[in-house]
Amino acid sequence: MPNTFGHAFRITTFGESHGGGVGVVIDGCPPGYKIDLDLVQTWLNRRRPGQSKISSPRDEKDRVECLSGLEGGITLGTPIALLVRNEDQKPGHYSDLQQVFRPSHADYTTLTKYGVRPGSGGGRASARETIGRVAAAAVAEQILTAKLPGFRCVAYVDSVKGEAAHIDDPASVTRDEVEAHILRCPDQAGRARLEAIITAAQKDGDSVGGTIACAISGVPVGLGDPVFDKLEADLAKAMMSLPASKGFEVGLGFRSTLMFGSEHNDAFTSSNGRISTVTNRSGGIQGGISNGELVYCRVAFKPVATIFKVQDSVDAAGVPVKLRPKAGRHDPCVLPRAVPMVEAMAILVVMDHWLRQQMLVATRV
Amino acid sequence: MPNTFGHAFRITTFGESHGGGVGVVIDGCPPGYKIDLDLVQTWLNRRRPGQSKISSPRDEKDRVECLSGLEGGITLGTPIALLVRNEDQKPGHYSDLQQVFRPSHADYTTLTKYGVRPGSGGGRASARETIGRVAAAAVAEQILTAKLPGFRCVAYVDSVKGEAAHIDDPASVTRDEVEAHILRCPDQAGRARLEAIITAAQKDGDSVGGTIACAISGVPVGLGDPVFDKLEADLAKAMMSLPASKGFEVGLGFRSTLMFGSEHNDAFTSSNGRISTVTNRSGGIQGGISNGELVYCRVAFKPVATIFKVQDSVDAAGVPVKLRPKAGRHDPCVLPRAVPMVEAMAILVVMDHWLRQQMLVATRV
Amino acid sequence: MPNTFGHAFRITTFGESHGGGVGVVIDGCPPGYKIDLDLVQTWLNRRRPGQSKISSPRDEKDRVECLSGLEGGITLGTPIALLVRNEDQKPGHYSDLQQVFRPSHADYTTLTKYGVRPGSGGGRASARETIGRVAAAAVAEQILTAKLPGFRCVAYVDSVKGEAAHIDDPASVTRDEVEAHILRCPDQAGRARLEAIITAAQKDGDSVGGTIACAISGVPVGLGDPVFDKLEADLAKAMMSLPASKGFEVGLGFRSTLMFGSEHNDAFTSSNGRISTVTNRSGGIQGGISNGELVYCRVAFKPVATIFKVQDSVDAAGVPVKLRPKAGRHDPCVLPRAVPMVEAMAILVVMDHWLRQQMLVATRV
Amino acid sequence: MPNTFGHAFRITTFGESHGGGVGVVIDGCPPGYKIDLDLVQTWLNRRRPGQSKISSPRDEKDRVECLSGLEGGITLGTPIALLVRNEDQKPGHYSDLQQVFRPSHADYTTLTKYGVRPGSGGGRASARETIGRVAAAAVAEQILTAKLPGFRCVAYVDSVKGEAAHIDDPASVTRDEVEAHILRCPDQAGRARLEAIITAAQKDGDSVGGTIACAISGVPVGLGDPVFDKLEADLAKAMMSLPASKGFEVGLGFRSTLMFGSEHNDAFTSSNGRISTVTNRSGGIQGGISNGELVYCRVAFKPVATIFKVQDSVDAAGVPVKLRPKAGRHDPCVLPRAVPMVEAMAILVVMDHWLRQQMLVATRV
Repeated sequence: MPNTFGHAFRITTFGESHGGGVGVVIDGCPPGYKIDLDLVQTWLNRRRPGQSKISSPRDEKDRVECLSGLEGGITLGTPIALLVRNEDQKPGHYSDLQQVFRPSHADYTTLTKYGVRPGSGGGRASARETIGRVAAAAVAEQILTAKLPGFRCVAYVDSVKGEAAHIDDPASVTRDEVEAHILRCPDQAGRARLEAIITAAQKDGDSVGGTIACAISGVPVGLGDPVFDKLEADLAKAMMSLPASKGFEVGLGFRSTLMFGSEHNDAFTSSNGRISTVTNRSGGIQGGISNGELVYCRVAFKPVATIFKVQDSVDAAGVPVKLRPKAGRHDPCVLPRAVPMVEAMAILVVMDHWLRQQMLVATRV
Repeated sequence: MPNTFGHAFRITTFGESHGGGVGVVIDGCPPGYKIDLDLVQTWLNRRRPGQSKISSPRDEKDRVECLSGLEGGITLGTPIALLVRNEDQKPGHYSDLQQVFRPSHADYTTLTKYGVRPGSGGGRASARETIGRVAAAAVAEQILTAKLPGFRCVAYVDSVKGEAAHIDDPASVTRDEVEAHILRCPDQAGRARLEAIITAAQKDGDSVGGTIACAISGVPVGLGDPVFDKLEADLAKAMMSLPASKGFEVGLGFRSTLMFGSEHNDAFTSSNGRISTVTNRSGGIQGGISNGELVYCRVAFKPVATIFKVQDSVDAAGVPVKLRPKAGRHDPCVLPRAVPMVEAMAILVVMDHWLRQQMLVATRV
Repeated sequence: MPNTFGHAFRITTFGESHGGGVGVVIDGCPPGYKIDLDLVQTWLNRRRPGQSKISSPRDEKDRVECLSGLEGGITLGTPIALLVRNEDQKPGHYSDLQQVFRPSHADYTTLTKYGVRPGSGGGRASARETIGRVAAAAVAEQILTAKLPGFRCVAYVDSVKGEAAHIDDPASVTRDEVEAHILRCPDQAGRARLEAIITAAQKDGDSVGGTIACAISGVPVGLGDPVFDKLEADLAKAMMSLPASKGFEVGLGFRSTLMFGSEHNDAFTSSNGRISTVTNRSGGIQGGISNGELVYCRVAFKPVATIFKVQDSVDAAGVPVKLRPKAGRHDPCVLPRAVPMVEAMAILVVMDHWLRQQMLVATRV
Repeated sequence: MPNTFGHAFRITTFGESHGGGVGVVIDGCPPGYKIDLDLVQTWLNRRRPGQSKISSPRDEKDRVECLSGLEGGITLGTPIALLVRNEDQKPGHYSDLQQVFRPSHADYTTLTKYGVRPGSGGGRASARETIGRVAAAAVAEQILTAKLPGFRCVAYVDSVKGEAAHIDDPASVTRDEVEAHILRCPDQAGRARLEAIITAAQKDGDSVGGTIACAISGVPVGLGDPVFDKLEADLAKAMMSLPASKGFEVGLGFRSTLMFGSEHNDAFTSSNGRISTVTNRSGGIQGGISNGELVYCRVAFKPVATIFKVQDSVDAAGVPVKLRPKAGRHDPCVLPRAVPMVEAMAILVVMDHWLRQQMLVATRV
């Protein structure tokens, strides 16, 4: 089910960059909840390109319309269909690319897999595909916030081309702090360094990547379904399904491999009967199940494949071609826009597992 | 479906460490293929503890029995049930642990999630749970090898506590080279350094982690199902569902974030009509779909949570406890035994996506 | 996944009678096929009420729009989203029904299950919900017809309130014959009797039910997936998910229970190497798998619950109420409109199983 | 997922008649429940052939073993694997049938679908396949009984070859009454007539079919998930996946088509605030959701395909053959043994939907 994600809170996304529109159908949303579509729109605005000089100037309005599942703003328990029209279609813009495979794009693999290729460009490999994910997460977040008082999911740009932001306490970062600057990096002192790297790459027609951190507070103990649907496994799949992601880690991740067990283990303690861990190197998950601590993960995004330099490639007949892209509308760095995408995928995973866990809660002997 | 993995080649695993047995039911295995159960047994032997001084001395025979789905060694197209009995049950061994939550183990989260906890120890959080996965992969590998001439999946220990093995060409490593040494690291010159780290940790009652690399040759172009079931997304979920895994990356992974797009992009070339890429920084996947190059990924495993040092913890009532484990049967480093597990998960993902892609192949216009 | 049907050809429908619209997302449609949206519209026109004096006068235009998945009329292999706007919304029309549960409607069960009830009427329990199913089937039929030369699926009204149509050979009935008369009964001589029953009931403010037969030619041997996804099991689920259906049978169905085994068994014969059965009492399915003969089934539809007579009921507080419906827009008999719905569900089941079987075909040793 | 049934309470069955064994893995069973394996064994004994002169004399012990998921008889929330060994294997018994397709058996369709055919006979098309279903239902029933005080599911033989039993009130039939007689028909006065039909057919080497009724009391309001997973739709699929079933109806079923709407509608009433219906022609389901009344359905089973008469058939090469079966071990009528199978499928459907509904209950605003 390649275009469906989740089991209890299931989203099915649809839409190419250049068809009638993109969107999502949510099945499994519990009934009776008030959903504010303006908050959904706010999420879409965050995802939208064209927000600054370091983002693509493409101006898509991305107005969301709810086709079903809500009445008077209340969820009916029926599928919620959300649609965003494609307004700024310029299929001709990509036309000369039809003949040549862009390096590290999906052109070659898409054509070989399906036998057809969207003539108008990237099709579902476009970041525009993520609109449905983000819209669904904006619905899920409203329900989680209503039911889990301390729930908060905040992602931010953690490094750009190896230059790291300095964030002392990921749990304390707020979405407002992240949104306050176009880079979506809450390191007020350091982010100018990161921004300079992007600007320099852009000037050179090149691109850069980096990492995004995601911190989720207020996740109750017990989410995650071993052995395959462990919480970190579903987070990993969620993040690695995002365009341009190349790596995922939870807790200390790859850095945990540098430690002894005696350094890495999180000792238990308790206070007023509430059990917690003294440290949180595990990133809030043990044995695939949330332990009530901050769920923390990081995602690596490669440098954007679209660059404004001559590249070697071939056409569909295998003939060598020098690819000389014209100026177009592309980000030199996907990171700022990927921040809401990372949050969206994290929220969808938590929402799905929270719903799944409710079945156990309700059937407790 | 927490204990089922895959869509076309679906495995459902079952079994705790200390019940009647562990195993797997494979649904979706195509009919008419010859399966050699001795090869399945060989896989299980590789996974088994008790292989050397750096592995757990627990001696489980782990003889596999096929209950269904084969007749005369030929797959019938019906579910293949494979069972391994638990022979070396010593539930009392763990009994004093029932009262106290072991740090960075699944005890606390399991009890809180399910309201019950296997009195006999780790239950499904034990590495013994992976027997079903490995047995299923041993079946899948035989089919893939029969249909895809160049198919080969080889994993190996890539680093131990930050000390890296030096492997020039992952594609050239053979399983025989990996199996030739107990560490499962094909770096003949360097592996003594890695082994020394493990031995020292063991002597100190401590544990270490590291990374495992996995290289899959002969994957045809076209495997992977965007947008959610991208090949790297399913690989990520597969690997992150393994016990003790904390990170996953494909291609250059986190290191790709250090590069410019112009350095990272894989230029296309062609030879005798066959299109390929000059470099393979993408790890054989572009846009979520295999491109015919070597599929390459790495998995981070934390240091084993079981150590032979006094640790702070609490009991189920929240009372602080000094945890003093007796000598037991545990690996100081999970890496060597995790090598076949990583291979198994990689094979299961490729098998599933290869079957899925056959539907497109068969319905091509 | 209550709003998703099928595994390989998966449809997810959405939409209430009185929201923005109704529709479907198809995931798993193979790429490269030409789809004529005019044929989809023709299907929707067949399903639409307001076609005659024995159907509801509600005039919905039901124009279909394709939002994604097609480019130049060719399937891309991506999700196909089809939308039909709700144009004739009159939510106030139902308003006084909000207080009282209509007998044998879904009002009471919907409110009790979800805790909310669409104030505008039947919500997803409305027959309008089937638009998505019919649109998806119209796509599937074009692909099946392209790949399976003899494929043809024809349903028709078989009986009304016990008065049976006389059809000598279901396999020879054409859709044109069915569509030639508003009753959708191809028995030219007898259908006046059936129509008279409906007209009389309508005059009396009452309603009637009946049976629909469905004959599917050209189904290849081998469709159906035992043990749970047997072809007749999936057909049964498909039909029993239609509004107002109360019974399903395949082959001789309940009449088979009147026979001896020696009378019911279908002897095999062969002609020019092609194996077939002399009789077809099994309805083209043996052991859950199609045998190449005509697949034949029948569906029972109860008399429509909406009648224009005073009925006893209660309101949400349990207070007895005399329900006196005003004149509204409802069919006295659902059968004619249910004919394309039955065909649609049959086509969706065959399409799904045909795709599933292609995986076996492609992996044959 | 052809061998998996259910979404929240998922069973995966495995096993052929003549391999190592048959069984089931249950995933999704809630933790903390006491399960009595003796009750599971009792269910298996009911399903077992060899119970009387009108059943097959094949003596299978069918002892169930629990491999996982229980500890001290308590469910752990992990997969419950149940295994029944095949003890009475006589593969040679069927050997001469390998060459010829038995009429109305699965031989021809199985061979054509899979390209291989179990040489030992029917494989998964055997009724022995239902052991896994029955064992899983025996687990589910214990949980439902614990949580739903009035829950009771009783099926019984309702007619044999058109000769109907007379049961005034299906809701009042007890399982003890059904089990009191080998025919499993609680009509004490009339069942001799039904038994005589079977005995006569057996004497003549022939077989007969009939209908089984199933009445489920104590189903709470709200089970069933429109639009596709309506309660009657899942019941229909469940029943039509049983060997030899040819028809399904809920409530008055096909007989409802003989009535006016004004005769068929179930008026609402209330007593002490509890809403109910005056009649129950709907069979306890409205709009796909249970309404708190008795859920009532009927299943048609064809006459057994195995008869002891000469039949016309062909071999795999299409050559006409007179099929002369030797005396073997087969029932002349599947109905008595099908009674626990029908109950099992009903219980599995209710269990699955009850669990699904708990998610809504737990998330109610």
